[in-house]
Amino acid sequence: MDGIPSATPPNKGGRYLGIDPGLYCTGYAVLERDSAQPRLLEGGVVRSTVEGSLAERIHEISCGVREVLEEFRPESMAIEQVFTTIKYPKPALLMAHARGAILLAAAERNMPVVHYMPTQIKRLLTGSGRASKEQIQHAIKNELRLKAIPEPNDVADASAVALCHYYSCQLAPTGG
Amino acid sequence: MDGIPSATPPNKGGRYLGIDPGLYCTGYAVLERDSAQPRLLEGGVVRSTVEGSLAERIHEISCGVREVLEEFRPESMAIEQVFTTIKYPKPALLMAHARGAILLAAAERNMPVVHYMPTQIKRLLTGSGRASKEQIQHAIKNELRLKAIPEPNDVADASAVALCHYYSCQLAPTGG
Repeated sequence: MDGIPSATPPNKGGRYLGIDPGLYCTGYAVLERDSAQPRLLEGGVVRSTVEGSLAERIHEISCGVREVLEEFRPESMAIEQVFTTIKYPKPALLMAHARGAILLAAAERNMPVVHYMPTQIKRLLTGSGRASKEQIQHAIKNELRLKAIPEPNDVADASAVALCHYYSCQLAPTGG
Repeated sequence: MDGIPSATPPNKGGRYLGIDPGLYCTGYAVLERDSAQPRLLEGGVVRSTVEGSLAERIHEISCGVREVLEEFRPESMAIEQVFTTIKYPKPALLMAHARGAILLAAAERNMPVVHYMPTQIKRLLTGSGRASKEQIQHAIKNELRLKAIPEPNDVADASAVALCHYYSCQLAPTGG
């Protein structure tokens, strides 16, 4: 959210996790640096049971994300900034419940979390903060040298934020 | 949230936890049945550090709530239903992040969570779904036989939802 400082981007090695949070379906993408290029190590989704209570569904999302953190041990998490202008309040609020549990999973592992504005992600991936969804998907496919655009769309969105995070970290000035 | 089923109210004994969720400050109230009347066993707040990142703040709230669950071992948690019409989107979204982490804490303990509409709480405590804040506070003070209205207001709000939950459970038909 605006006004809440993001953690400092981590060093230039390691693994970069991108998250597209959702109560029904949370997408994730794990990138790593391979021959000075970003590589998609794993992409997938964590789903919750629609019939479950809100608490149970959050628990399912949390467990799935924790498994990803445990298996891939990324050094940092990137996630899209929540919009401050909400068109659809109820879905946004449900998403924020899941997002809270996901950020908690990162905090419990002392994992830095970096929040990116949608325009930042678009600009870093395509050069334009107003890029279309298709342009973003094209950039993901090209930059990660994939045979196809990741599916479902939650994985593509998670890959976009992970890639934005990767480039941000590579571009960040070296400390010291 | 509307459309997501609440858990079945628990049996008529035990401890009843009411939560007023907030990222800055989460109020809680633990009630128990004492001589066929509700008694406020403990009320308090969990605060987060304003300077912290969103993830750190959610973690602080989560840890505080988990401590309350561990210490008092309530049988169920009651929490106010999230409004579907949002006047202030940003505070509502931040609150929903904290609320997600709090619901997660309940789910991790298999603790039933019951969501109450603000009008339900007002009606059960005063007889009117349109009761004023002062009428609610007066009802809390009377029903819990307190010398003063609980402070800060987060504790009073948590006491209101806990009391609503207590009465709902007492009123619920006996199973079997």
